Amino acid sequence: MINRNALAVGIDIGGTNTVFGLVDHIGNCISHDSIKTSHFQLVEDFVDAVCLKLNKLITDQNGVKIIGVGIGAPNGNYFSGNIEFAPNLNWKGIIPLSKLFEERLNIPTTLTNDANAAALGERIYGAAKGVDDFIMITLGTGLGSGFVSNGELIYGHDGFAGELGHTTVEKNGRLCGCGRNGCLETYVSATGIVRTAKEFLDKSSNSSLADLDVITSKSISDAAIRGDKLALEIFDFTAEKLGFSLANTVAITSPKMIVLFGGLAQSGDLLIKPTKKYLEKYVLSIFKNKIEIVPSKLNASDAAILGASALVWNK
Amino acid sequence: MINRNALAVGIDIGGTNTVFGLVDHIGNCISHDSIKTSHFQLVEDFVDAVCLKLNKLITDQNGVKIIGVGIGAPNGNYFSGNIEFAPNLNWKGIIPLSKLFEERLNIPTTLTNDANAAALGERIYGAAKGVDDFIMITLGTGLGSGFVSNGELIYGHDGFAGELGHTTVEKNGRLCGCGRNGCLETYVSATGIVRTAKEFLDKSSNSSLADLDVITSKSISDAAIRGDKLALEIFDFTAEKLGFSLANTVAITSPKMIVLFGGLAQSGDLLIKPTKKYLEKYVLSIFKNKIEIVPSKLNASDAAILGASALVWNK
Repeated sequence: MINRNALAVGIDIGGTNTVFGLVDHIGNCISHDSIKTSHFQLVEDFVDAVCLKLNKLITDQNGVKIIGVGIGAPNGNYFSGNIEFAPNLNWKGIIPLSKLFEERLNIPTTLTNDANAAALGERIYGAAKGVDDFIMITLGTGLGSGFVSNGELIYGHDGFAGELGHTTVEKNGRLCGCGRNGCLETYVSATGIVRTAKEFLDKSSNSSLADLDVITSKSISDAAIRGDKLALEIFDFTAEKLGFSLANTVAITSPKMIVLFGGLAQSGDLLIKPTKKYLEKYVLSIFKNKIEIVPSKLNASDAAILGASALVWNK
Repeated sequence: MINRNALAVGIDIGGTNTVFGLVDHIGNCISHDSIKTSHFQLVEDFVDAVCLKLNKLITDQNGVKIIGVGIGAPNGNYFSGNIEFAPNLNWKGIIPLSKLFEERLNIPTTLTNDANAAALGERIYGAAKGVDDFIMITLGTGLGSGFVSNGELIYGHDGFAGELGHTTVEKNGRLCGCGRNGCLETYVSATGIVRTAKEFLDKSSNSSLADLDVITSKSISDAAIRGDKLALEIFDFTAEKLGFSLANTVAITSPKMIVLFGGLAQSGDLLIKPTKKYLEKYVLSIFKNKIEIVPSKLNASDAAILGASALVWNK
């Protein structure tokens, strides 16, 4: 049942779009709206525009009480409430985002990065409900991750924990946007799997992918679902990298569950099944056959808003 | 000032020796004793023997109050209070160790593995006092680790978190006692560095180590301190493996500090300096120049007892 007396605001800031909405404590997204992040050169103008639309959503809910605002944003720091040096946003340097929203809305505001927000969303409304030890992995342009241990997000001493995408899986591997080589996200992400497809197609053109002008992670998934052998090999290669990394990661935090989110993760068992196979192959025996790998249970269209709003209910 | 009114018992169980003692809340070890673990085929006889000597220590402290018993043991599980399948102990299978002690002493008893106990010892009395996010690494026959995040030990869903020694650092690397290949502890541990020395000596005998009948981690340290070039290369090789692994680990938990314990770690800057160099080389830029690597500050002779006793004060 929807409880309109107490709602949380969830705001998810992406490089292109920002989505926001009102969410009740069991994860019903009551109403939502969006704006183009990239249109705003000044962060103050952006916050003004979000607040204008957000106040409309709140007013529309006649006398609703807003408990808090949760924001998920790239490089969002939970401790400082700042966005710090986000490469894909117009606003450079250190941006006091929580403060800017609090000044306008007069509602307590909490910020974290998008993968941490997704982890909380999964814990409060989704696949990891009631699970105290799990890993959230978001597969988009890059690979984001959030670690929950002892029922709490691991923020690390500086708020920057959870960079599984930038652990090195191949010492002299692919060049990463971070300037280093062989980061997991250069293999396991929407862009990573496209790089793999191009490499594989250089060696073999015996695939329906060879006929495409533009290869995307979606077209690789589609080909694999049709049984395209090369596409299936591409998924196996990707899963091997992820399974190997997860085996090392599991040895550190011993999670009960690993939740995968994002287009790549939602493509049936294409990624999850071989990832599970490689995790079990590489992992230390005491962890074998203990860990579930599951897709996100959040409705994809609302997931980002839900994740951000979970920051409020988690307090 | 020693507070004799409230003391904790610390018991550290090793494959060969078991040491135990009474510790006050600031880490003074008031009295201690030991027995040979390996002499006891039956765990009940072992517990009886420890309790006999322990009761003597307690009685000697005229009317002292014992707050609790903390035990560090290989494969000790915090959640169950059991030792589970410890390869280096006589007692096979699942041993309800906490229960056995509680039945005899009638004092609340807490068990964990030795590396977790060391982490708590360091946090309560040692180098990580007041540090909420750090990694403890113990270098002995193997490599043990304990992770503290948000001020709490990460036990994982099953109590087996913190197996950094069994993360894979070389995919087709050295055979490990766990049956897999390339585990960090096959390179970074007292036995790992001896394996490295033997490999290096197969290629070059231009070292004082070539004259020794038996090579130990101590003799490698001693040679390195004397400026032996091959010994220094062995340390550099070891530090590269550790620094690389730490760079990946730091990206997950973002600790403020890494504490190293054990003979290898105590050999001045021999290991810590090059490890720091490689950590900084490999780590993601947002973590650069933020993380201290420090040696343990616990007195080596009492450290195991202190670590185990810290379980009591941590409650």
